[in-house]
Amino acid sequence: MPTNLRVTVWNEFRHEKQEPKIAEIYPEGIHGAIAKALTEAGHEVHTATLDEPEHGLTETVLNSTDVLVWWGHMAHHEVADEVVNRVVARVHAGMGLIVLHSGHFSKVFQKLMGTSCNLRWREEDEKERLWVVDPTHPIAAGLSPYFELPQEETYGEHFDIPVPDEVVFVSWFSGGDVFRSGCTFRRGLGKIFYFRPGHETYPTYHDPNVVRVIQNAVLWARPVAGPRPTYGHAPSLEHA
Amino acid sequence: MPTNLRVTVWNEFRHEKQEPKIAEIYPEGIHGAIAKALTEAGHEVHTATLDEPEHGLTETVLNSTDVLVWWGHMAHHEVADEVVNRVVARVHAGMGLIVLHSGHFSKVFQKLMGTSCNLRWREEDEKERLWVVDPTHPIAAGLSPYFELPQEETYGEHFDIPVPDEVVFVSWFSGGDVFRSGCTFRRGLGKIFYFRPGHETYPTYHDPNVVRVIQNAVLWARPVAGPRPTYGHAPSLEHA
Amino acid sequence: MPTNLRVTVWNEFRHEKQEPKIAEIYPEGIHGAIAKALTEAGHEVHTATLDEPEHGLTETVLNSTDVLVWWGHMAHHEVADEVVNRVVARVHAGMGLIVLHSGHFSKVFQKLMGTSCNLRWREEDEKERLWVVDPTHPIAAGLSPYFELPQEETYGEHFDIPVPDEVVFVSWFSGGDVFRSGCTFRRGLGKIFYFRPGHETYPTYHDPNVVRVIQNAVLWARPVAGPRPTYGHAPSLEHA
Amino acid sequence: MPTNLRVTVWNEFRHEKQEPKIAEIYPEGIHGAIAKALTEAGHEVHTATLDEPEHGLTETVLNSTDVLVWWGHMAHHEVADEVVNRVVARVHAGMGLIVLHSGHFSKVFQKLMGTSCNLRWREEDEKERLWVVDPTHPIAAGLSPYFELPQEETYGEHFDIPVPDEVVFVSWFSGGDVFRSGCTFRRGLGKIFYFRPGHETYPTYHDPNVVRVIQNAVLWARPVAGPRPTYGHAPSLEHA
Repeated sequence: MPTNLRVTVWNEFRHEKQEPKIAEIYPEGIHGAIAKALTEAGHEVHTATLDEPEHGLTETVLNSTDVLVWWGHMAHHEVADEVVNRVVARVHAGMGLIVLHSGHFSKVFQKLMGTSCNLRWREEDEKERLWVVDPTHPIAAGLSPYFELPQEETYGEHFDIPVPDEVVFVSWFSGGDVFRSGCTFRRGLGKIFYFRPGHETYPTYHDPNVVRVIQNAVLWARPVAGPRPTYGHAPSLEHA
Repeated sequence: MPTNLRVTVWNEFRHEKQEPKIAEIYPEGIHGAIAKALTEAGHEVHTATLDEPEHGLTETVLNSTDVLVWWGHMAHHEVADEVVNRVVARVHAGMGLIVLHSGHFSKVFQKLMGTSCNLRWREEDEKERLWVVDPTHPIAAGLSPYFELPQEETYGEHFDIPVPDEVVFVSWFSGGDVFRSGCTFRRGLGKIFYFRPGHETYPTYHDPNVVRVIQNAVLWARPVAGPRPTYGHAPSLEHA
Repeated sequence: MPTNLRVTVWNEFRHEKQEPKIAEIYPEGIHGAIAKALTEAGHEVHTATLDEPEHGLTETVLNSTDVLVWWGHMAHHEVADEVVNRVVARVHAGMGLIVLHSGHFSKVFQKLMGTSCNLRWREEDEKERLWVVDPTHPIAAGLSPYFELPQEETYGEHFDIPVPDEVVFVSWFSGGDVFRSGCTFRRGLGKIFYFRPGHETYPTYHDPNVVRVIQNAVLWARPVAGPRPTYGHAPSLEHA
Repeated sequence: MPTNLRVTVWNEFRHEKQEPKIAEIYPEGIHGAIAKALTEAGHEVHTATLDEPEHGLTETVLNSTDVLVWWGHMAHHEVADEVVNRVVARVHAGMGLIVLHSGHFSKVFQKLMGTSCNLRWREEDEKERLWVVDPTHPIAAGLSPYFELPQEETYGEHFDIPVPDEVVFVSWFSGGDVFRSGCTFRRGLGKIFYFRPGHETYPTYHDPNVVRVIQNAVLWARPVAGPRPTYGHAPSLEHA
């Protein structure tokens, strides 16, 4: 069970360049903060951002990525369909995918889900408390029964996703909402984890519990050296 | 619980026009056979086919459809993307969808699943035995623990779909394959049932068990007069 | 699809006899309030209580019950194992079961779940807001995206149940907890719905949304006239 | 992620002592064959059998067991309820459990499932072909899309278990049956894997694919160092 993985952290990387207050929180970008945490966990980490050629997600990059982490928000529509299709194909081929926060509205996630991925939201500095509802799940390793983020953007149900394969976290917000904050899905040979926290105006990706969840999720989402199903015409396995 | 539903049966309707042997089995088309069974079940049934304008699936037709039944095979690529998007949007808005047999490869089903929907297949007149693995499911009402189709096209695992919400049937084939033959999914407000049998060269849609399953599935997939979630910016429900 | 069901509402019926304040809320017992709502929904409703012979749950009563509703709290241990086993066997044979509130700790529910069914709780008159997380589910028919109970006992995660087949509601509590408040399970031929609200000191079972959920749940949990699987030694279905 | 686990392999160990033909296949008992495979995988393996005091499953043994493997058949009723309750409690506390073949009828498995765990069966030397229906699952690591056992006891649906959390394998049998052969469940903090093959009269536990599945399952079922939920009365986390 090799746990030394090749991880690519993708970030839209616009807020940090346009808003000094956000740059202060993430001087090396949101991708920089996450990459640091995953490097510390022992992985071989690369980053890629929207304004690079092909958004930094060439065939070569994706083919040497075991798990892709995705953060996007204000520029989902600028992600080229060709790259979206490439990422989706790579997930189908076994690459793990961690979709963070506003990435719920990315083309990649929507295509993989088959739904709008819409939700309720507001930015009112509310408290978020994430409850572990599946304490057996490896993504919850090392956590307490709940953890808190003092201020976050609020997301509320209904979250328009397919029924998740597994729900690991449910969030409570001081403004009265709940949210399925940690959800797993399988598509093709790829495993997907959606994790809610991480609005750009808060230091959420410096929070040790959030970091731990992302580290756990990367391990969980790693490709399994399992069967490669063959599709199409197939002869009978029994003699008549 | 009104069970008098508005059902539209959509059929590609090409095999029946091109191959006399198939026309003999389904003189009024596959859609005609299914429409008859659903009319007998008390529903208000319409049919629509590929070669009609907008494939017979105008906004008006879809907006007055509670449950759509879909059969397609050789001409999936001829279904206009605009119509595909319209059907997907309508499922998201609550319309039930029954996808039959080779419809696994329809654009509509692929878009809703987010996977290739690929599988193994062969046409060797094998016996199919469908086992009920969820006897509590309303789609299994009126059935025996299993039923048989003396000759069918074979589909085999791996079936590249998301993990189904529910698996109602698993098929055994004489050639050595198994298949998750009856699967449910939820997308937006809509319920989807995939049902495997129904190759055009066999009289499968005249089989009383197959008919019963489709009748049950239509009832199961009917829209629920439930909450219409609101999405987007939402004020706090609690006072600060 | 006959929806005229034979429903038995079982209640421990001790709080109402011992505490005048509770008797004021439920002058005919909690079972009386629920029975009234289900009678109004068109069902044939009986009630049964702990202090009746065999707790009112004789073979005859159970064998003529399509759906059993269960409320218990302070006297779970007084329910005879023989009756517990009888109820469990009847669920296995197809009877629907609706377990309410503190019934999470009943012997019947624990036996069917295989877990402790433990949870966090406090009685501090907190507000509960129940969010519909599955708007396609028939148990959510007729509801808004959420509904509120101004004062209820608080239950919090982790709720020690198996992974539910379906989660229909998630509750938000003003004291900071969340809870999977509406969960479905299948055991044998029987369908089970656990529904959280209903502490005896509040008029919860007079709330129209709560009433609607219980009415919906009874319909959902009704036995399906489906396959009766046969078990044990079975000859080959194919010739050697 | 330590993968060096303390595994206890429990075997009824009666067939091997009573029937020379079986002793020939498993000269060191079924537990011996499985223990060997798990030792080779790097684990610290102990064995325990029915006729030892407390069936070899003392508090001390269980408390130092990360994953328990269970094989039983003809003497399920001889397993003392006290030991059954001890094993169930230990699963609830986080110990993994692998239930093999006829262990479906063990008291331990039945208690954890809450159903009869009944099924169809015959002993007619049929061919079993196990299809991987979830190629993303770590329990399928290293396998091909299917593998075969030339002769096995047949198990057929309906298998009276709760809806599994995950179905990894579905078996095809030459006699016409299918079976959900690899199923996962979570109970309390413990993960459970049921794996079908392994009738005592066949050398199934010498088969390299079967061995690989059991090795994978032990890793999958290992306890997660996750949250230890606290239950019972809990103060509000918010100030009024």
